[in-house]
Amino acid sequence: MAHFIDTRASLINDALEGLVAASGGRLARLSGDPGIRVVLRAKIDPAKVAVVSGGGSGHEPAHAGFVGLGMLSAAVCGDVFASPSVDAVLAGILAVTGPAGCLLVVKNYAGDRLNFGLAAERARALGHKVETVMVSDDIALPKSKQPRGIAGTLFVHKVAGHAAEAGAPLENVAALARRAAASAKSLGIAVSTCTIPGAPRSARLGEGQAELGLGIHGEPGVERITLPPASDLARMMADRLSGTVAGDRFALIVNNLGSASALEMQILTRAVLATELGKRVHLLIGPAPLMTALDMHGASLSIRPLDDDLEAALTEPVPLPAWPGAIRVVPPVCRPLPDGLTEETFTPSHDAVTAGRIAAVAHALIAVEERLNALDAKVGDGDAGTTFAGAARAVLADLDRLPQADAPALSRALAERIGRAVGGSSGVLGSIFFAAAAAALAEGAAWPGALDQGVARVQSYGGAKLGDRTLLDALVPGIEALKSRGLVAAAQAARAGAEATARMDRAGAGRSSYLAAADLAGVQDPGAVGVAEAFAALAGS
Amino acid sequence: MAHFIDTRASLINDALEGLVAASGGRLARLSGDPGIRVVLRAKIDPAKVAVVSGGGSGHEPAHAGFVGLGMLSAAVCGDVFASPSVDAVLAGILAVTGPAGCLLVVKNYAGDRLNFGLAAERARALGHKVETVMVSDDIALPKSKQPRGIAGTLFVHKVAGHAAEAGAPLENVAALARRAAASAKSLGIAVSTCTIPGAPRSARLGEGQAELGLGIHGEPGVERITLPPASDLARMMADRLSGTVAGDRFALIVNNLGSASALEMQILTRAVLATELGKRVHLLIGPAPLMTALDMHGASLSIRPLDDDLEAALTEPVPLPAWPGAIRVVPPVCRPLPDGLTEETFTPSHDAVTAGRIAAVAHALIAVEERLNALDAKVGDGDAGTTFAGAARAVLADLDRLPQADAPALSRALAERIGRAVGGSSGVLGSIFFAAAAAALAEGAAWPGALDQGVARVQSYGGAKLGDRTLLDALVPGIEALKSRGLVAAAQAARAGAEATARMDRAGAGRSSYLAAADLAGVQDPGAVGVAEAFAALAGS
Repeated sequence: MAHFIDTRASLINDALEGLVAASGGRLARLSGDPGIRVVLRAKIDPAKVAVVSGGGSGHEPAHAGFVGLGMLSAAVCGDVFASPSVDAVLAGILAVTGPAGCLLVVKNYAGDRLNFGLAAERARALGHKVETVMVSDDIALPKSKQPRGIAGTLFVHKVAGHAAEAGAPLENVAALARRAAASAKSLGIAVSTCTIPGAPRSARLGEGQAELGLGIHGEPGVERITLPPASDLARMMADRLSGTVAGDRFALIVNNLGSASALEMQILTRAVLATELGKRVHLLIGPAPLMTALDMHGASLSIRPLDDDLEAALTEPVPLPAWPGAIRVVPPVCRPLPDGLTEETFTPSHDAVTAGRIAAVAHALIAVEERLNALDAKVGDGDAGTTFAGAARAVLADLDRLPQADAPALSRALAERIGRAVGGSSGVLGSIFFAAAAAALAEGAAWPGALDQGVARVQSYGGAKLGDRTLLDALVPGIEALKSRGLVAAAQAARAGAEATARMDRAGAGRSSYLAAADLAGVQDPGAVGVAEAFAALAGS
Repeated sequence: MAHFIDTRASLINDALEGLVAASGGRLARLSGDPGIRVVLRAKIDPAKVAVVSGGGSGHEPAHAGFVGLGMLSAAVCGDVFASPSVDAVLAGILAVTGPAGCLLVVKNYAGDRLNFGLAAERARALGHKVETVMVSDDIALPKSKQPRGIAGTLFVHKVAGHAAEAGAPLENVAALARRAAASAKSLGIAVSTCTIPGAPRSARLGEGQAELGLGIHGEPGVERITLPPASDLARMMADRLSGTVAGDRFALIVNNLGSASALEMQILTRAVLATELGKRVHLLIGPAPLMTALDMHGASLSIRPLDDDLEAALTEPVPLPAWPGAIRVVPPVCRPLPDGLTEETFTPSHDAVTAGRIAAVAHALIAVEERLNALDAKVGDGDAGTTFAGAARAVLADLDRLPQADAPALSRALAERIGRAVGGSSGVLGSIFFAAAAAALAEGAAWPGALDQGVARVQSYGGAKLGDRTLLDALVPGIEALKSRGLVAAAQAARAGAEATARMDRAGAGRSSYLAAADLAGVQDPGAVGVAEAFAALAGS
């Protein structure tokens, strides 16, 4: 697969430049050695403990995305999935560490342990106060002596950053961070591996398969399973996590490993909260991408017993777009459906002129059904006549129940009947036409002006304009003539408009827009002809 | 591919429940009809204009993720890539609209135009003030009469939401929204299609191919291209966008279409800002997933001329995790590498006893090179002797240049020499040992206590414990004896410790941990033997 990169070699440096460029001056980076990739806050307060983390890249937003007030002071970034060098870590420490000292938050991988460890020793030898906390929250291999550090690291970043920002001394910041790390437990699931820019995706996962207990570097999962429904998956993962933690109040991180869709993450969050463990979750972070594995289609859950200190640290807002905040879980809020959704009930009334006109139009449209279908067979899908006739039959069948003597109500009733009788776009457009006319009538407009309003809305929502070879080419001149010269003139204008469509060599909207000029030549638009017939019937009735 | 869902039919409803559950009571949803999927603010202020948007699902966080103070009042969600029904939109309008009226923000697709349009007419017929703004920012097809609405919609959401929150009347909110929509221009690029839950991924894109000018519903792009490097791609896209906008100050949205990795998005952002158009970008939103197409590996750029009103609207913070904020672009901040990275320069000094001990240890380790390699060939990779001897030769060669008379400096120098001479984990662990010892010596410890510190750090960073069948099994008892009983006792203890490793049937760390008990039986750990030889040399020297 192709990737949005310049070169594989400059990948991480380019990305960090982009991150700093998009930070609005909030972040800075160390320059001078392309092998040393450190992102740090633009403003450092040496009176406060510095919190430094990092590791291989490919886990974004971790770690550089969490550099900022209240979280990390600096992030030291290795190449993709490779630990940064001792020199790079030392540079990160030295760039942000003042008299208050520095806490290193290290995910438990051999390379990170050693490189961060030696950097810490060198910084100490230079006279700096440095403490280190290892994060090893992965429970995928229960008997592992060296559990991996994954998304539970975010608990540690937030707690340490909060304590440091509050001015706590290094010993306290380190103690809080170690406490956060000690009881954080995480488990991952994925349905795809990740793609490393410049390398092909591993195809080890078949259709419908998933890996449970995976790492964040593309290493295979502990178990390969057939992916169950989200609710079953959530129960399975929650059960395993439950066995590793004690307590009745928890903080939960729902982490997107990269390319699970937001829909899926929301579904998984709902499913986790519905488990026995989930019901004990009082504080929720996510769903959000926090500790990813490039574009891995997967997710991880991290859980930690909650206490007041942790809650205060996790809920404190920080000005970092990558941190989604921690919310207190409350029962979901539901509202009933609003009134007004039920269709209006119309009070029938009688008006001889109106009834006659409606009947005349309806009979005329039924009479031209076959002719319009034949026209439409040439320039559309052949059902224009049936559509008009269907609407006409529905209105005719309901004629005695219509509020004939109440123009606004009549127009609303026509909107409703036509919308119900005619499916798809045509029905909606017909409804829009009469509903808009009804609103104008209710505001005191006469029929011609009200129909004008209907046309305006049909144009706005339907997207067609005059000359686009649609029914508007008969309807617009018809109404225009109606306003000043009466029904007979309107019928003539509509007829002329319909005939003119036969000379339009390009349809600008509707199904005819897919046809070539030669196919359209000499054929009137069936919708326009239908409108002309309706006007003719009105003029003659 | 498998997806984290329960059932295809309940997909969107489940996801919206998850969104509301993760909102901490900030959001609510309408219940009562599973076909009506509306997310709304839990608290509605009827004195302010309501801003309602929506459309097909699959574009998360749009639109439900942008419901909140300062942006949308409600989002009406259809099924995946399908417009919501008229009833659903009407329900959304009625649920949040008070006397101040409602603005509908509609992306320009036929289904959305019609369903939102008719809902607007029905709401008006019920006496509500409703205005509509169409967004059609996609420039993929320059001659299209109906450009699609894509990520430029976010400009409109933010501007309308800001004006509504400020208490502007409906006419003004609508006018500002129309102005924002009118000059927003967007263009997309993707290297994969999206995967619709329950359906296979379209394989129409080959290795290295990309689609330019794509939509957000999996519809094919306007052009299929070989993906160029990110900088060339950014120039190509910026050029096309430049041709559609005028001005010298722009706001830019960098939108992740779903599963482009954060690294790639940062690289693309850097590349776009470096273009001629990018240099005129004063306000940046993203990179972030704002208007996605499920898990499509792609990105889009949206640009709009900037003025003070727009800047005020876009930069106003809102309490929505999905909104990444708008930052003012400033020159990237770089800091020079800190002092302290360069290796220490040591002042040579002479101390006969120290020199003698170092030489004795070094010669002893060189003498057992073959023996240790032979042991390691049985339980490791056969180079333990060469590793020890290599470090010994490097130190011996430098003996006269070492600060023999300055214990802390000597230990720092040994850390540096050993780290340089020995690659990989062994070199780093050796460096950690002597660097930690140096720090303790500098604080006044004697050598035995200092070596204790070294052991503690090696254990902490290396992850091995006593009994894990490593050199610690000789080193720890050796140092323990040294502290109370002197060098001869230390040598005896180290020897006994090394011999004991032959009886340990499981290695807890290091390369031997991959071997079975039968392979280890009777073989001493070569590292432990090396340590025992070093102590023996010290005792005898």
